[in-house]
Amino acid sequence: MTLILSNDDIDRLLTMADYVDILEDANRELIAGRGLVRQRTDSLAPTKTPGAIYGLKSADGVAPKFGTAAVRINSDIITYPEVGGVKRRVKVPAAPNKRWVGLVLLFSTETGEPLAIFPDGNMQRMRVGATNGLGAKYLARQDARTAAIIGSGFQAGAQLMAIAAVRGIERVRCFSPSRENRESFCREWSEKLNLDVTPAATGEEAVKGAEIVACSTSSLGHVFFERWLEPGMLVSSIKLAEIEPAAVNRSDLVFIHNHEHKAKALETSDLPDMKDISGLDGEVSKAIGFAKLPTLLDLISGRLKGRTSDAQTTCFLNNMGTGYQFAACGAVAYRRAKERGLGHELPTDWFTEDVHP
Amino acid sequence: MTLILSNDDIDRLLTMADYVDILEDANRELIAGRGLVRQRTDSLAPTKTPGAIYGLKSADGVAPKFGTAAVRINSDIITYPEVGGVKRRVKVPAAPNKRWVGLVLLFSTETGEPLAIFPDGNMQRMRVGATNGLGAKYLARQDARTAAIIGSGFQAGAQLMAIAAVRGIERVRCFSPSRENRESFCREWSEKLNLDVTPAATGEEAVKGAEIVACSTSSLGHVFFERWLEPGMLVSSIKLAEIEPAAVNRSDLVFIHNHEHKAKALETSDLPDMKDISGLDGEVSKAIGFAKLPTLLDLISGRLKGRTSDAQTTCFLNNMGTGYQFAACGAVAYRRAKERGLGHELPTDWFTEDVHP
Repeated sequence: MTLILSNDDIDRLLTMADYVDILEDANRELIAGRGLVRQRTDSLAPTKTPGAIYGLKSADGVAPKFGTAAVRINSDIITYPEVGGVKRRVKVPAAPNKRWVGLVLLFSTETGEPLAIFPDGNMQRMRVGATNGLGAKYLARQDARTAAIIGSGFQAGAQLMAIAAVRGIERVRCFSPSRENRESFCREWSEKLNLDVTPAATGEEAVKGAEIVACSTSSLGHVFFERWLEPGMLVSSIKLAEIEPAAVNRSDLVFIHNHEHKAKALETSDLPDMKDISGLDGEVSKAIGFAKLPTLLDLISGRLKGRTSDAQTTCFLNNMGTGYQFAACGAVAYRRAKERGLGHELPTDWFTEDVHP
Repeated sequence: MTLILSNDDIDRLLTMADYVDILEDANRELIAGRGLVRQRTDSLAPTKTPGAIYGLKSADGVAPKFGTAAVRINSDIITYPEVGGVKRRVKVPAAPNKRWVGLVLLFSTETGEPLAIFPDGNMQRMRVGATNGLGAKYLARQDARTAAIIGSGFQAGAQLMAIAAVRGIERVRCFSPSRENRESFCREWSEKLNLDVTPAATGEEAVKGAEIVACSTSSLGHVFFERWLEPGMLVSSIKLAEIEPAAVNRSDLVFIHNHEHKAKALETSDLPDMKDISGLDGEVSKAIGFAKLPTLLDLISGRLKGRTSDAQTTCFLNNMGTGYQFAACGAVAYRRAKERGLGHELPTDWFTEDVHP
């Protein structure tokens, strides 16, 4: 039987601590040459919604130690509205019942069979968080007690969980442009993590005195600036342009997630406002010498040292995820779902065939 | 609702003539810059079956005119046995109930939603056939009456259907190394196409006097040789190495399907016999100057002329398919399946989500 799991199932099956452990293990496999990453590709095309474009995104990975391969697919209607003077990338929930479309297909490397199909959202969020959690494990002060979160959306909570999973955080300040959003974020996460999470009226107020700053926005522009950088701080991002390049360049240590993707080769035709789509990524990339920056793999392998003194300022740029992460995390989620009887079972025959393709 | 279609459904929905028409139309869209091809990638990794490797293959495409995008995925346990002194690539049906794993996911470019999921096998076979059918449309003699098929497997029948769809073929000769297989092929297709299909004891006997020769084997070596080439002949292949390079080089006109794929960048680790896997492809590629050969798009666009005299010898090398072909053909199959009520309906909510991924 092939399991159809929901986002809720996925959240029931894996904790943030699980994701951090699985991804560290999976990264060690990659370092040893025992895992495969097929870089993400984006294919953008016209769609009928005014001002929007259609995007098909896919990424593959094979994780032999976990016995799995995964393909992650996103099929998006994308818009680029301006919020507070800054362009954002916003996906429109245009599928029936106003829903978004992101799927993970998990296969067995032993039989080839499709083990499970599940939406990508919750795992996506947790693996982005856990990746930055691994960054924090190697780059944040051991005694970090105060964290700042810039952003209050879907990704922000996972950043907070990840920081709390790797450091003994006691207080958190959150800034996001909408007062309502940041206050609701603080109420939610104070309770969920039993932490002192308080709203800040500005980004500067949020980050002042924090040992860990996590940018987790959908902004295509900067949300953390050089003048905010303090000794001992770790500043992390989930989008390249979030941190002002001067702040990256003034940091003592800078690591990115991976170099697996080449410059996004968007294939386009007759699309609106293409120049806006990549935001500042190209500029920022050049300004910080992205192509030569070391990666999380260098930290995990020990090829390069992480933080060696409390005074260092450090940066972790989570530039892009991989299908490989879904293969590893999906394997553990699948095994637990089978044990616990979670998900819909469908005949595997529906997703296999009796002809040699 | 999201439709789950079977291979049988797919065959009920589209005829070979449909495929030829759809793919010609889809290619015109590509020529006009209105279609997107994300080249196929192969990720190979170890698996437990002795002498086998695991392969995850994926390819994407977006066909705005058809309102669809597609991802084709193969999850294979692959072996490389030697049959009659020639290495073949053979996929083992290792999924439950001894089945293979190949899937197409079809999405709407208007809503992003997953419209349909279906096995890739029958559509794969038909689109390979139809692609060579388009090659024959531009490169075979108008008065061709005799065809030769080398191979008697899953792909061979589609080659025959395609030739019959574009030319007034009256007789066909089939060679494949196993007498039983070629005889059974001839019985089956004589009846299906109401044609005179007869077995030949050798490849040479099969091709002698044929105006169209279709190589359609799983061989990784040559199955058509220069000494067999006759004036007026079109020789086509579905694998690069099937036609001896000297035959390609002596032909007056040579076209390939596409240049969309770079050299197969196999990412491998600890795999058996990797040097055998690509067979003669590299050698052949060099010998025929593959990188500079014109494509089917050049024929369809009229940038280059196809056959201009009955005496010309021509070659069509169907080197690789695209996910784009599945987007276009899948769109038509999906529309007809909805009209005719074919397939299992599953809640689209199972394949979409209420979180912004």
